[in-house]
Amino acid sequence: MNELVVLKIGGSVATRKEEGKAEVDSVNLDRISSEVRQALKKKGYRMVVIHGAGPFGHNPVKKYGLDEGFSDRTQLAGLVETRRSMEELNYHVVESLMNAGVNAVAFQPSASGLLCDGRIVDFQVSILEGFLSLGVVPVGYGDLLLDEKRGVSVLSGDYLAPYLALKLKAQRVVVAADVGGIYSSDPKIDRDARLLPELSSRDLGGLRLTGSRSTDVTGGMEGKIKALMEASSKGIEVQVVSGYEPGFVEKALLGEHVGTLIKK
Amino acid sequence: MNELVVLKIGGSVATRKEEGKAEVDSVNLDRISSEVRQALKKKGYRMVVIHGAGPFGHNPVKKYGLDEGFSDRTQLAGLVETRRSMEELNYHVVESLMNAGVNAVAFQPSASGLLCDGRIVDFQVSILEGFLSLGVVPVGYGDLLLDEKRGVSVLSGDYLAPYLALKLKAQRVVVAADVGGIYSSDPKIDRDARLLPELSSRDLGGLRLTGSRSTDVTGGMEGKIKALMEASSKGIEVQVVSGYEPGFVEKALLGEHVGTLIKK
Repeated sequence: MNELVVLKIGGSVATRKEEGKAEVDSVNLDRISSEVRQALKKKGYRMVVIHGAGPFGHNPVKKYGLDEGFSDRTQLAGLVETRRSMEELNYHVVESLMNAGVNAVAFQPSASGLLCDGRIVDFQVSILEGFLSLGVVPVGYGDLLLDEKRGVSVLSGDYLAPYLALKLKAQRVVVAADVGGIYSSDPKIDRDARLLPELSSRDLGGLRLTGSRSTDVTGGMEGKIKALMEASSKGIEVQVVSGYEPGFVEKALLGEHVGTLIKK
Repeated sequence: MNELVVLKIGGSVATRKEEGKAEVDSVNLDRISSEVRQALKKKGYRMVVIHGAGPFGHNPVKKYGLDEGFSDRTQLAGLVETRRSMEELNYHVVESLMNAGVNAVAFQPSASGLLCDGRIVDFQVSILEGFLSLGVVPVGYGDLLLDEKRGVSVLSGDYLAPYLALKLKAQRVVVAADVGGIYSSDPKIDRDARLLPELSSRDLGGLRLTGSRSTDVTGGMEGKIKALMEASSKGIEVQVVSGYEPGFVEKALLGEHVGTLIKK
């Protein structure tokens, strides 16, 4: 069986806010798509792509308080709006990958998985495995999933990607972020911030971690890094790289060290 | 728990072929959507909508021989194209229902279910149940699903609808077709064809059943009717009605007899 790589494309890398409206960042997305295509051509990987939500998901989730679960029928409009908005973004990501020559197929996490208190308790992993074996590149996303306790919960792409990497026994996870990796402090406000070539759980305490640029409803940066560390602790190579720097996603997919390697 | 109704919208009712290209039949689809909205307003049903593929699915499936399963990597392009095309049609059906005021949410059968030799062996029915209990109207479709034996197989909406009706313990299945129900012979070529108010398994032998207008890759009409009869045999009211006749879908959803009732 070919090596399996999971690519997480950060929501803020694939989207932007234009006059308060969620827009796809086609230029950046198309560049990443062609890097994916190049990596797949060079190595015959199997691949799963997971993209974040950016303003497509975060805005309606915030507006209707769905980050606190579903407790009230007035949130139904928000559930419909959020799911619709994520379908729309996913449609564009699949299109971009298809146009680049990738055998991309939409994969809907909310039809596949069930959460309990925000954690995945069921997921149709074997279906993904089957499609991968046919040569398909399933394209999933962070989304609102049914939650046994809260009605619905947000499942962040940053949790889904390492979860699937573990279940599918991936060799590598690449996270394309809106910064170049993990920094010693927030590079957007601190000019002395250093990019860390490696980050291990020992280092976590001394850092002031900050999230991505946009409003994020999917929980703090630390939880996301811990999820990546868990994957790393099972022998999966995990790297956070810049989703803006041309060539970095391709290099990381091929195993080059161009961002921050996440260690246990 | 409110009554549950499953509505199957025939592919040929929601789409048309325009100069060889698959198009959404927005006028007809929007009318059906507003009838769905009316029925939901009058009765507080829970509802699942399943739509067929029409040329959106049948054309690429035929072109790449996917109705015979997946045996060859050259079919991968066809798999990608078919899944994409069905996502596109589903996007429009959900949009039409949302615009009519229905809490419609896309539901992807290929992320949820697994087939073996064309038959459903696994499906995330409990997830659908959960979303229904929140007030969501899941909108699924006939699609290409992973098949343990054949690689992939077509799962017709005409099989998925009665399957879900049985699993979800629906009270009623309404099939909106491109004809007014089941006829004694093909009404498109025989002027003496009579609309049958009822059809039971006893009657099946004496009929010359024909499929829908468009090329259909989902198996013969008889198999579909038998699937509906099986639902009927478990006490579910099953009716085939015209998806073109204004008001008929709404009436059938509300329990009026305006087409052919399918009996055991």
